[in-house]
Amino acid sequence: MGHAKTTRERILGRGVALASRSGLEGVTLGTLADAVGMSKSGLFAHFRSKEAVQISVLEHSFVVGAPFVLEPAMKEPEGLPRLTAIVANWFGWAPRAGLPGGCPVAAGLFEYDDVDSPVRDKIIEMEANWRGLLKTLVQQAIDKGELRRDLDADQFVWELNGMYLQHHVSARFHKSPDADARAAAAFSALVDRSRQPPSPAKGRSTVRRRASRK
Amino acid sequence: MGHAKTTRERILGRGVALASRSGLEGVTLGTLADAVGMSKSGLFAHFRSKEAVQISVLEHSFVVGAPFVLEPAMKEPEGLPRLTAIVANWFGWAPRAGLPGGCPVAAGLFEYDDVDSPVRDKIIEMEANWRGLLKTLVQQAIDKGELRRDLDADQFVWELNGMYLQHHVSARFHKSPDADARAAAAFSALVDRSRQPPSPAKGRSTVRRRASRK
Repeated sequence: MGHAKTTRERILGRGVALASRSGLEGVTLGTLADAVGMSKSGLFAHFRSKEAVQISVLEHSFVVGAPFVLEPAMKEPEGLPRLTAIVANWFGWAPRAGLPGGCPVAAGLFEYDDVDSPVRDKIIEMEANWRGLLKTLVQQAIDKGELRRDLDADQFVWELNGMYLQHHVSARFHKSPDADARAAAAFSALVDRSRQPPSPAKGRSTVRRRASRK
Repeated sequence: MGHAKTTRERILGRGVALASRSGLEGVTLGTLADAVGMSKSGLFAHFRSKEAVQISVLEHSFVVGAPFVLEPAMKEPEGLPRLTAIVANWFGWAPRAGLPGGCPVAAGLFEYDDVDSPVRDKIIEMEANWRGLLKTLVQQAIDKGELRRDLDADQFVWELNGMYLQHHVSARFHKSPDADARAAAAFSALVDRSRQPPSPAKGRSTVRRRASRK
């Protein structure tokens, strides 16, 4: 049992690396068998179809990413510190987790935009869970009074996802050295705006904001 | 000559539609010949390689998009009206131009993030040109005093691109009915923030901004 689990995990680890490089569509029973150095029939003992491989690889990408993204962030205090930590860990997580080809789920959003399949359903599910988690962290920052009460948490998460995609494109496609700085500036501006009261007057500090309201 | 041009344009129109649905990698001499109803050797008279087809299809996607995106925006007054118009036309342009599968260039940013090829170089060139155009429009709005003098135009365009990608994912992948509203809210917030003077006090109108500077 222990050995079987290790073999499966080793296969899935290779599968995640392959998906990161070649996209999920590049992960088939054949290409994965090659990558692991197994026969296709040997791999077939673990996965019965290409879709089953791709879905398991998607699930495993979360297992690979969690120690780099989610786990350290959950040690930060609830509210803005935890939200900021998870964003910092999330952007560019894949290369730090040994996946220079980037996040397989992000790529899947573009690969599967037209394809109805169980793989697409799995991406939808994982992405919805991730957005749900981000929204919870935003809501906690609202509840703690760090972000404003009337903030649209869904809109916040929507814009955050756009930054993540653009960071992916900047870092992976353009190999841009300022991808991290651009993303940090964008996130910081989003937080800054989400802190502001909805009144027309604003200031960086509470004192100034109060003064400008007179 | 005229007829030859028409044939080529007809082929490329089909190629853009195919790329929109299946990604650029889905456009080969074989699939395009099928889509046009030509023999592969007939198509070979127009294009000598898969890469040549894909590059021509990319170029043609600009020809297809321009009357929906660029041309109407250029009729708006320079500055914020033109910038706002081009963004409104750009987001979701592909379905309006008869390409329900979405923008082939945006998909290419994810398809070709790891592949060194002349196709990737073409995507880089087109994307750089597009960002350059957006930056020019932002700069014109700065020059007209509509956006603030110290605005980082590259950062503005970076964030705008993130919104475009997230809009693409919302509309295409999630089939979300609020993709347009989310994108409009994000853009409006970006413009709003870019209007503000760097001083702590701010107002919505020029009159208020001037007053607050005293």
